[in-house]
Amino acid sequence: MSEFAKLPKPPYYAVIFANQRSLENEAGYQQMAARMEELAEQQPGFLGADSTRGADGFGITVSYWADEASIKAWKQQGEHLQAQQSGKEKWYKNFYVRVAKVERAYEFEK
Amino acid sequence: MSEFAKLPKPPYYAVIFANQRSLENEAGYQQMAARMEELAEQQPGFLGADSTRGADGFGITVSYWADEASIKAWKQQGEHLQAQQSGKEKWYKNFYVRVAKVERAYEFEK
Repeated sequence: MSEFAKLPKPPYYAVIFANQRSLENEAGYQQMAARMEELAEQQPGFLGADSTRGADGFGITVSYWADEASIKAWKQQGEHLQAQQSGKEKWYKNFYVRVAKVERAYEFEK
Repeated sequence: MSEFAKLPKPPYYAVIFANQRSLENEAGYQQMAARMEELAEQQPGFLGADSTRGADGFGITVSYWADEASIKAWKQQGEHLQAQQSGKEKWYKNFYVRVAKVERAYEFEK
């Protein structure tokens, strides 16, 4: 996802997910991440996401949601619950999640 | 910055800065970015930041601040104003900034 997420005007919600990959089984990780992206896009209230990761395995994904209810519904989605469990067991060394209400936004394009 | 920003309990503010590098003058960019990090750390209300960039030049930096006033003060800081101008002129192809109030947070560590 290197295209910017195109979003409506604020307010909406952001979920900031920062994580350190364990750097094992890269192919399996990519497959899981692509599946989660596909599923998230089907969730009600999903607005978009941006994600990047450096060569050191440190990644930040910010997903955007219409409201808190849609964030909570995604967190409880069945396949996503399994992925969260796998994330703790094998994909990530550590991570944090911060849920925030976007109040204002601006952009620049050449 | 591949260490997680250690933060107080919410609420506090996040500035989500996503950008596409123009991929010119990498050494000059790194120097500017390091200087901005150094300056931000001296600003009142600065709580921490996490940043990463992929091989494609797409980067996300999330900085955390005590309140809106400290975000506005940083945006107006003299050397930072110059860097913002250079960012538009040469460092970035495009970017967005989203200012959000962090309402809740959790983390995981092995």
